[in-house]
Amino acid sequence: MLKRILLGAGAALLLAAPTASAQTRKKTKASAASKVVAAAPRPDRSDSLALRRLFDEALLRGESYENLRYLTGSIGPRLSGSPQAQTAVEWGKATMEKAGFDRVYLQPVMVPHWVRGGRERGEIVGNKGKEVKVPVCALGGSVGTGGKLKAGVVEVHSLEEVKNMPEAAVKGKFVFYNRPFNDALIEPGAAYGGAVDQRALGAIEAAKRGAVGALVRSMTSARDDNPHTGTMRYDEAVAKVPGAALSTNAADQLSQLLKANPDLQFELEMECITLPDEKSFNVVGEIKGSKFPNEIITVGGHLDSWDLAQGAHDDGTGCVQSMEALRLLRAAGFKPERTIRAVLFMNEENGTRGGNEYARLAQQNQETHVAAIESDGGGFTPRGFTLEADPATTAKIARWAPLFRPYHAADLLPGHSGTDIEPLEAAVHPKALIGYKCDSQRYFDIHHTSADTFDKVNRRELELGGASMAGLIYLLSKYGL
Amino acid sequence: MLKRILLGAGAALLLAAPTASAQTRKKTKASAASKVVAAAPRPDRSDSLALRRLFDEALLRGESYENLRYLTGSIGPRLSGSPQAQTAVEWGKATMEKAGFDRVYLQPVMVPHWVRGGRERGEIVGNKGKEVKVPVCALGGSVGTGGKLKAGVVEVHSLEEVKNMPEAAVKGKFVFYNRPFNDALIEPGAAYGGAVDQRALGAIEAAKRGAVGALVRSMTSARDDNPHTGTMRYDEAVAKVPGAALSTNAADQLSQLLKANPDLQFELEMECITLPDEKSFNVVGEIKGSKFPNEIITVGGHLDSWDLAQGAHDDGTGCVQSMEALRLLRAAGFKPERTIRAVLFMNEENGTRGGNEYARLAQQNQETHVAAIESDGGGFTPRGFTLEADPATTAKIARWAPLFRPYHAADLLPGHSGTDIEPLEAAVHPKALIGYKCDSQRYFDIHHTSADTFDKVNRRELELGGASMAGLIYLLSKYGL
Repeated sequence: MLKRILLGAGAALLLAAPTASAQTRKKTKASAASKVVAAAPRPDRSDSLALRRLFDEALLRGESYENLRYLTGSIGPRLSGSPQAQTAVEWGKATMEKAGFDRVYLQPVMVPHWVRGGRERGEIVGNKGKEVKVPVCALGGSVGTGGKLKAGVVEVHSLEEVKNMPEAAVKGKFVFYNRPFNDALIEPGAAYGGAVDQRALGAIEAAKRGAVGALVRSMTSARDDNPHTGTMRYDEAVAKVPGAALSTNAADQLSQLLKANPDLQFELEMECITLPDEKSFNVVGEIKGSKFPNEIITVGGHLDSWDLAQGAHDDGTGCVQSMEALRLLRAAGFKPERTIRAVLFMNEENGTRGGNEYARLAQQNQETHVAAIESDGGGFTPRGFTLEADPATTAKIARWAPLFRPYHAADLLPGHSGTDIEPLEAAVHPKALIGYKCDSQRYFDIHHTSADTFDKVNRRELELGGASMAGLIYLLSKYGL
Repeated sequence: MLKRILLGAGAALLLAAPTASAQTRKKTKASAASKVVAAAPRPDRSDSLALRRLFDEALLRGESYENLRYLTGSIGPRLSGSPQAQTAVEWGKATMEKAGFDRVYLQPVMVPHWVRGGRERGEIVGNKGKEVKVPVCALGGSVGTGGKLKAGVVEVHSLEEVKNMPEAAVKGKFVFYNRPFNDALIEPGAAYGGAVDQRALGAIEAAKRGAVGALVRSMTSARDDNPHTGTMRYDEAVAKVPGAALSTNAADQLSQLLKANPDLQFELEMECITLPDEKSFNVVGEIKGSKFPNEIITVGGHLDSWDLAQGAHDDGTGCVQSMEALRLLRAAGFKPERTIRAVLFMNEENGTRGGNEYARLAQQNQETHVAAIESDGGGFTPRGFTLEADPATTAKIARWAPLFRPYHAADLLPGHSGTDIEPLEAAVHPKALIGYKCDSQRYFDIHHTSADTFDKVNRRELELGGASMAGLIYLLSKYGL
């Protein structure tokens, strides 16, 4: 799921290449915006009826839910480079071909190949040698421990705290990052953004001070026994030490035991390893535009998932909704004026190689991109869409809000779009990058864990989302931007 | 859950006494409404901060989730008249006393006492005597079958269809009501309202034509093996025949087998029985108003649940949210100007005896009721509130919408309030009856089934709802209506 907006400004730069959009777009004057909007054709009653047809098709004859059942249940976890990721590529291509899109093809891309390996174990070792086994998992990209790694533990609540500690307090120990989500924030994504620097950068800061590894509280508000994996970074100038996530219950327990006994130790064993890059693919399906075939609207999700998860909400739902959006347009009898592309991006989770390659090819082929939509925040009940666009374009799209109101999907507001489509910004300057926005209170309970399974997805919620996306594509295709 | 609005106008009259509100309130002229609204004090920045304090308290130190865990897990199903319902009454009283409300008391009320009994079994019997066992459950209030009841089956899709059939086609058979939810409707409550007459009145219409019983497709969009119970009616002038729900998978299967073999039989065995009425209680907790102690604002949910269910979303969430709303006001340091009452109503599911008794006592005691709020549509993410009030009052409340926007709870629109509070209308004419409205796409998947369990409730969604309710009470208490 979306990484940029969820980190502080500084950390964001480390995780993704910055775009110039925020700066340049601000310069467009409000007066220019209102002129463009005034000139834009108003959506009419036929648009309202068109959306209703798309929702009917989704709710009465939808195919996304059964597609998701297959992807999550029969294929399962599909981390980049894994055999299951390859199976998912073949499934995506076959599913789009079966849906009868005008053109279906693969875009080759080399992806990282990290594997968790066999053994993964964490234990708190008390001062009387008493061991408490706790749920841990390696963070994605971590090095292994090279056998058992046993050391003391120093608990901190920020990267800053580590930087300011005397080296003696850290050296030879595990740094245990235990700053929880800020539950007062209404948007769980904001709470994630306020905590995830610990996971992303914790091992680097720990290693700089001579620590042997980083233990990180799982990125969730939930109190349970699921460790949450997710990507972590290394700095080539700093020693690579292992990074592991503790379940929130385990983190609370470790913190409590540390208070009673600051000298306790932690034993970590992980056999994870990074193998050579593997060849993989983005999967692309197109419906050719009837009037403006060279103007492209992209809609996508990411096909890869973490290895622990079935990748239902992250991001199987985005994949099946994207394919469904095209199918809905066809099934409801529409012939889009512009070319619509469904893209199943490879490697969002640990590299964005697919998103980068899609943008590179778009630029190389001198394509014209009107807009791109990404669904990568879960498949829950729709709220609307987040927009990265200049003020005039934002206002133009926001004028469509009344059409989405009957479906509770009328929030059309500025916000982060999606990790896979953002490289398009620098490459081909689409008028708008758009994120599908849904209710997300449950998302981080299961995010990057073994609990991200098909049964957590509600059929109607998924279908309402796919129909909302199809509705927006219908409008973008008809009116342009 | 709310029954009146969910049925067609005709059926509604059979299930609940009509109120005069809809008629009389319409007469208030729009001009009068705008005058009242213009005169109403505008909510200010202190109100915005007050709501934020309530949400902070709920999200950071909330008690509703753990209260719900106990109610659903340790007490469990609590149908009116059952020993568990009595335990729930004692728990509710103790929980409110522990919360330190000014006054906690019980309101005695006699309630129906229906029990499911031991045996409950349904089988499709093919023409070669081949039996297919299918998931069934007795509808609430049904008579038993008196041993095994085996008969042919006639499938219908409406009460009307039964009325228009030749008696020979129905006599001696089961009438099988198999009209599904209309999935094209965006609000699942509307789909429920469009199908539930089959459950409520199916046995009466079947018996009028000489049928031996009614089999009803479960009231849900989900396709699974959970039979959904719920209340059914008898007409004293018509023979009482058993009513049972089939899971949606079983209904589909029966329908399919009937097409192949219209002469197949169904064997039903149910030992349910209605026992004499039992004494039970509403549980009431009060915070005395500091300025207008005689002006009352009620907030409630219903304590009883169906016997099959833990009654988590229906309506444990409404109970714990109502108690939490009062606790939040106290914990955030507010001294409400008007008297706030949390009420755990008994017997919403099969009689509304608690709601009626609460209204009767309010009238007898000549109480002044400003407003009443009920949460009985599940404990999912908030959307806002539904209002039954005259246009001026509705407009006044709707002006508070901006205060709820940061919490996505700003839908303040006309709509059904709640079954337990509606008897107040005729008894003491409160200015507004208000329903807590949340996202309901998942609600009917579990409604009245064994799947309505604690794990289906998300802590944050529950807390956001309780805080929304507390926020509205704060405003009602401060500004009156």
